[in-house]
Amino acid sequence: MSFNKVDLSFQSCKSNYDESDVVLFSAPLDTTTSYRPGTRFAGNAIRVESIGIEWYSPYLDMDLKDHPTVDIGDLDLPMGDVESALDVIYYTAKDILEAKKLPMMVGGEHLVTYPVIKAMFEQNKDLCIIHLDAHTDLRDEFLGRALSHATVLRRCHDLLGDNRIFQFGIRSGDKHEFEWAKTHTQLRKFDLVGLEDAIEQIKDRPVYITIDLDVLDPSIFPGTGTPEPGGITYKELLGAIQAFTKLNNVVGADIVELAPMLDASNVSTVVAAKTLREMILLLHRQK
Amino acid sequence: MSFNKVDLSFQSCKSNYDESDVVLFSAPLDTTTSYRPGTRFAGNAIRVESIGIEWYSPYLDMDLKDHPTVDIGDLDLPMGDVESALDVIYYTAKDILEAKKLPMMVGGEHLVTYPVIKAMFEQNKDLCIIHLDAHTDLRDEFLGRALSHATVLRRCHDLLGDNRIFQFGIRSGDKHEFEWAKTHTQLRKFDLVGLEDAIEQIKDRPVYITIDLDVLDPSIFPGTGTPEPGGITYKELLGAIQAFTKLNNVVGADIVELAPMLDASNVSTVVAAKTLREMILLLHRQK
Amino acid sequence: MSFNKVDLSFQSCKSNYDESDVVLFSAPLDTTTSYRPGTRFAGNAIRVESIGIEWYSPYLDMDLKDHPTVDIGDLDLPMGDVESALDVIYYTAKDILEAKKLPMMVGGEHLVTYPVIKAMFEQNKDLCIIHLDAHTDLRDEFLGRALSHATVLRRCHDLLGDNRIFQFGIRSGDKHEFEWAKTHTQLRKFDLVGLEDAIEQIKDRPVYITIDLDVLDPSIFPGTGTPEPGGITYKELLGAIQAFTKLNNVVGADIVELAPMLDASNVSTVVAAKTLREMILLLHRQK
Amino acid sequence: MSFNKVDLSFQSCKSNYDESDVVLFSAPLDTTTSYRPGTRFAGNAIRVESIGIEWYSPYLDMDLKDHPTVDIGDLDLPMGDVESALDVIYYTAKDILEAKKLPMMVGGEHLVTYPVIKAMFEQNKDLCIIHLDAHTDLRDEFLGRALSHATVLRRCHDLLGDNRIFQFGIRSGDKHEFEWAKTHTQLRKFDLVGLEDAIEQIKDRPVYITIDLDVLDPSIFPGTGTPEPGGITYKELLGAIQAFTKLNNVVGADIVELAPMLDASNVSTVVAAKTLREMILLLHRQK
Amino acid sequence: MSFNKVDLSFQSCKSNYDESDVVLFSAPLDTTTSYRPGTRFAGNAIRVESIGIEWYSPYLDMDLKDHPTVDIGDLDLPMGDVESALDVIYYTAKDILEAKKLPMMVGGEHLVTYPVIKAMFEQNKDLCIIHLDAHTDLRDEFLGRALSHATVLRRCHDLLGDNRIFQFGIRSGDKHEFEWAKTHTQLRKFDLVGLEDAIEQIKDRPVYITIDLDVLDPSIFPGTGTPEPGGITYKELLGAIQAFTKLNNVVGADIVELAPMLDASNVSTVVAAKTLREMILLLHRQK
Amino acid sequence: MSFNKVDLSFQSCKSNYDESDVVLFSAPLDTTTSYRPGTRFAGNAIRVESIGIEWYSPYLDMDLKDHPTVDIGDLDLPMGDVESALDVIYYTAKDILEAKKLPMMVGGEHLVTYPVIKAMFEQNKDLCIIHLDAHTDLRDEFLGRALSHATVLRRCHDLLGDNRIFQFGIRSGDKHEFEWAKTHTQLRKFDLVGLEDAIEQIKDRPVYITIDLDVLDPSIFPGTGTPEPGGITYKELLGAIQAFTKLNNVVGADIVELAPMLDASNVSTVVAAKTLREMILLLHRQK
Repeated sequence: MSFNKVDLSFQSCKSNYDESDVVLFSAPLDTTTSYRPGTRFAGNAIRVESIGIEWYSPYLDMDLKDHPTVDIGDLDLPMGDVESALDVIYYTAKDILEAKKLPMMVGGEHLVTYPVIKAMFEQNKDLCIIHLDAHTDLRDEFLGRALSHATVLRRCHDLLGDNRIFQFGIRSGDKHEFEWAKTHTQLRKFDLVGLEDAIEQIKDRPVYITIDLDVLDPSIFPGTGTPEPGGITYKELLGAIQAFTKLNNVVGADIVELAPMLDASNVSTVVAAKTLREMILLLHRQK
Repeated sequence: MSFNKVDLSFQSCKSNYDESDVVLFSAPLDTTTSYRPGTRFAGNAIRVESIGIEWYSPYLDMDLKDHPTVDIGDLDLPMGDVESALDVIYYTAKDILEAKKLPMMVGGEHLVTYPVIKAMFEQNKDLCIIHLDAHTDLRDEFLGRALSHATVLRRCHDLLGDNRIFQFGIRSGDKHEFEWAKTHTQLRKFDLVGLEDAIEQIKDRPVYITIDLDVLDPSIFPGTGTPEPGGITYKELLGAIQAFTKLNNVVGADIVELAPMLDASNVSTVVAAKTLREMILLLHRQK
Repeated sequence: MSFNKVDLSFQSCKSNYDESDVVLFSAPLDTTTSYRPGTRFAGNAIRVESIGIEWYSPYLDMDLKDHPTVDIGDLDLPMGDVESALDVIYYTAKDILEAKKLPMMVGGEHLVTYPVIKAMFEQNKDLCIIHLDAHTDLRDEFLGRALSHATVLRRCHDLLGDNRIFQFGIRSGDKHEFEWAKTHTQLRKFDLVGLEDAIEQIKDRPVYITIDLDVLDPSIFPGTGTPEPGGITYKELLGAIQAFTKLNNVVGADIVELAPMLDASNVSTVVAAKTLREMILLLHRQK
Repeated sequence: MSFNKVDLSFQSCKSNYDESDVVLFSAPLDTTTSYRPGTRFAGNAIRVESIGIEWYSPYLDMDLKDHPTVDIGDLDLPMGDVESALDVIYYTAKDILEAKKLPMMVGGEHLVTYPVIKAMFEQNKDLCIIHLDAHTDLRDEFLGRALSHATVLRRCHDLLGDNRIFQFGIRSGDKHEFEWAKTHTQLRKFDLVGLEDAIEQIKDRPVYITIDLDVLDPSIFPGTGTPEPGGITYKELLGAIQAFTKLNNVVGADIVELAPMLDASNVSTVVAAKTLREMILLLHRQK
Repeated sequence: MSFNKVDLSFQSCKSNYDESDVVLFSAPLDTTTSYRPGTRFAGNAIRVESIGIEWYSPYLDMDLKDHPTVDIGDLDLPMGDVESALDVIYYTAKDILEAKKLPMMVGGEHLVTYPVIKAMFEQNKDLCIIHLDAHTDLRDEFLGRALSHATVLRRCHDLLGDNRIFQFGIRSGDKHEFEWAKTHTQLRKFDLVGLEDAIEQIKDRPVYITIDLDVLDPSIFPGTGTPEPGGITYKELLGAIQAFTKLNNVVGADIVELAPMLDASNVSTVVAAKTLREMILLLHRQK
Repeated sequence: MSFNKVDLSFQSCKSNYDESDVVLFSAPLDTTTSYRPGTRFAGNAIRVESIGIEWYSPYLDMDLKDHPTVDIGDLDLPMGDVESALDVIYYTAKDILEAKKLPMMVGGEHLVTYPVIKAMFEQNKDLCIIHLDAHTDLRDEFLGRALSHATVLRRCHDLLGDNRIFQFGIRSGDKHEFEWAKTHTQLRKFDLVGLEDAIEQIKDRPVYITIDLDVLDPSIFPGTGTPEPGGITYKELLGAIQAFTKLNNVVGADIVELAPMLDASNVSTVVAAKTLREMILLLHRQK
């Protein structure tokens, strides 16, 4: 008799690459984090914690085990060399897209979204972004860097242009960021009001969804570097995911900014894992 | 001069057994827990924490010190022998019922509810159950066991039959459990909508109330083995207890699944203690 | 070349005393705390944590760096001698008021509010108090002491008299405190309903605002000595601060009862820091 | 059938007062603590934790269940009124001594030792003290108070006079305290060297043993208000207890300064509980 | 281009089963744990934490990457059915032994050692055991069970007979266990004195090494269910492993009783991971 | 009356720059950290914690208040741009040296030592380094970077050349690092044996002391990114500082790698603060 090697893939995501429609990977980058770091550990923390969570979603009435998904693990990023790390993410996303699969990324800090958008945009010039976050992330530079967790949506805007980025839940940033947003993005302060309208507006266009989990109130998600009180409840986030089902062309998604060590109760990791289950299922609805 | 022995009864529950209308006990069983264990420590953690909490409830406008209650402590359960442990709980409940007192149990894992229901049902064939929980607990077996925290309401259904169990707040389970519930229990997904109607329907029948505290959102109750985001707020739970006052024949109650070590801030234990105060007062209203 | 000494003032509050309109200080007293102590560390914990928080408020559309504020740090209180400690606070408040500046205090336990009110009342016989809290704080004495965190609003009433204290969010206390409040204060149980009306009523009178942060639900504020489930959300607190902008004569304010060690995630300290930013900005609107 | 009330006495210390040779009580005072408070919770934390610890000591080859001991619990101290609290402790100790029983106290802050020594000294003018601690505790006053955790051994010296107090493990204090000790106490810096000699010298005199658990290195005892690195190991403390068996007239003992909340792993509480078991057994050897 | 599935094997243990000399597996059983449970999470916690630890041992001057090892992960144990779980472990060990490979097990509670010893003993009637532990584990039954973490070495003795079990570091147990050990095992109280002699005595016999990590002092290993102060230092444990290199026929080994959740700093998991690296290397020296 | 601004300098280090012999600064860099980050918060954590620690050292019999020291706080480093950050540290050190003052630095990650050594070496071509650490830090590059926490002593060797770096306590690294050290540095594995000899050898040369606090066993210092069991005790570190007093020309020093968030008990921060007090006093002995 022989034994198989340990398989700590997320939940039931144990298919091989070729047979999978959705590709899960994690990007353990937290180099530009300006406050409390630790998001690099998010991917594996979610994998291990996912053992205790049901695979069936009563919200979407779908079971993850019915949908072939591969988990290719943490990307191997050169720590301390941001540009090279972003390149690794970019080429990974590009390969996945060329294979006609949908990428589902777990951060890392929010900057990891940029290389995925870059790869997406090369294929979909019509791309829109739905962005849930506590922070604007619209600085033109931050601490001397153009590529930073605090500039990531601004860099995405460099590619996509005006009114293609829809931001919700925003409650922190510099004054000039809020000003800039008035003419360049669709920014909703504090809550998710208007999300249904935005979805109606772009439902037939290619849409990428990036969820900075700190959009949640820190009561339910303390495990993040810059918690910002006054966020949305988890039920509101579930409502948003329900609304996403009206999109007809979701081309990829990410959840970022879980720093698991900062929440000793592990609830933040459970929140991320449940959200990941829902988002993978959402991607599978596109096929 | 002489001194009395230490008395760490819950709050003011320092009456003797014979003079008490309500009997508080804790059942430190967590053997079948499939994920993070630790509920066996709940009873004593609540006792010690209760020192810092007022005895007067502004919600029910009742003061616990006006209502004679005995706290008989942790039952002495044979660890690792589930069947014998359940027997101890069963005979305890039976004795309390025969003495015409009302049992108020603190878990332990949710399986401890089953032997109390068994004792209850022998006396009240008309018994109904109100069940607040994040999880269905309706599996027919779990990891090879018929008696498990994940099967406990199914076992209760074996006794009571269809449509006698009213479930609220449920947001996690296997797909087949949700299917099965459609014809066998009254299951409400996600929230407490319909609770008032259910209470109106069964207000004159004997009702047992079992509260798995993980029905609460983990933002307010992280200290439990399988936290499930998207739960009810504490104000919603207080609203439910207010609604329970319309029941004319509450025959017993329990709160289960506090694992105090999992919440270093101790807030989860405070939540359980305050809920326990309210539930004991609710039972006293029956007299 | 020379170097400046370390400056760990709260956020951008680095002005000198003479040029500042608002004076921030912390009062590290927790001697009469009856349950879990630790509020003495609140001031410096907030200072250090404030480094990670934006200075711009999208709620009030004001930036703290535009408003000269001095942070004079922890007062030097004689530990273990409550009366002398209260005297230090009293004379500090008095000096600030005489300099025509507005005091913004960080507790410490709630008792620190009393000496500030005493100094305030000597200047403003028409003073009113808005009081957000989980607890009544209306005992006439507590554990044998007239001056205690549990009696502080009663002592304020001794000065101000009936119907000058407006209490919100109250959900814990002795029965007799709730009774007493019926004829002596304006007490609202459980939530903030009626706050707008109260503000309308006293908007032209001198108003002091005291926020016991345990008015918040412990889901968002576990780091406090006596957490009381069933509190308000952080969005509700932000709504209250928005409502305070309709007051025309806020003469000072405090936030009390943060015990930073009790919340290892540091979210409670972030909550206090953000609230402090908003309250300082509110005071600057009076000028 | 009837049920007994919950009994959360320490380990097997469930005898009644009259039949017991040793009386265990806890003194939940931490009012004068100058740094991190929380020792008031030590007694009950030890009681609950003691459930997981063997009653048999392989060090002393004695089993606690063979030695009748009563646990009278936390004394009821008026919080915030130090002098009255000390009186309660004094009269408790006095009553125990008059009943010809041996007192075993759990702190609380170190100041609780003083009233016990006062009661002891009235009966035994020849009393000596063995004092294990990280701190000198020899200030004449501290923050304006003569009675403080930092002055407690100085106050004991006021009663006993020179060279009756034997201090070990001391590694923190003001310079003048170390100077003063040179002519008034027997102070050993840093370790326990000389303990055996001291014991030989006073073995036939009445000896009270006070152990500030912060004498231990914070690696094994982080749960204390002012941890001081460079302390003794737990094996060294066990060695000291072994040495105490050569004393022929131990008249009482205490362990103080456990602040259980400060060590989330609970190891500090386990350390205190095991030490308490050994010390109770030591007292029983005197009979 | 294609991608490989995530591989979270321990350190460099990424070989396939057939090419490996040593087989690493974890046994997530903690059902009979009498105090604080949680050891079921040890295996995966060690795997994830091992990413941060060097593969080279300066103690043994060996690098793990030079020695082919397979990690087959957590065994799939039926939770709550102890006997069936033990069977799974037994058959796993048996298969590994029949393939002429060496088993290296990570617990789980200590009871998992028994089925491995049973499989070992069938092949090696001359088997000896070296046992490092804080606890005797020699009860004949515990809480009504013959198979328990507290009886495991007694059950091993049932197979091996007198004087084949060498116990070190023992400092907790019932009096009768210590008595029984005098004639049946080689038990050393408190420390490792005599280990070199024991090794000399049995160096040419088949030896299984079982390390209950609670043999370590809780200062360095707080993350375990029943921490027992007064244990050995980590340097002493490293010295023991150095001494094990003189054994000529180590046939397998385990490390048990890590409960990772109980140590928020993760140091206990690092300790277990480093020990595991050393023990795997030790097994490779046998080939 | 006026008030001074808050001063949170370390302990009594409240002198101005010009009047001070020793200059304390902290360098909040943790960008190249390969495992658990967080050292950027060390400086301010130590400042706040230092309030609870005596200024007098019974080890050196010196009181910090007698020795004028300035604390210039956290340097303002451009986060995410390592080279620029190192330049800021370099020019700070250079300015301090040109003012004939002694620099005392608190890390940050270990890489911050390199720019200080560079500035030192320009003034003292005869410079030697005493290096206490768990890790070799001798890689030629790490994750593609020449400047990294894992290469820092190799970069120092580039400047100083062979046999000028004396390493102690080393117990982790790649095999080739240990090999390389044999001919290029003086490396002592595992402990401090030989430190006295090294000091005798270089006592009249200019010596810089760099203490990576992870040289301590994680039992006493869990709050660091890569804890490595088997380290030295705190008493051994105190012994090393005692030995340093025999050096006649200590030209500067640092302590690095405290990550305060990783130790919720705060003991690691206390350890760092006490070590800092001793090291500042050591520097003052040079004057």
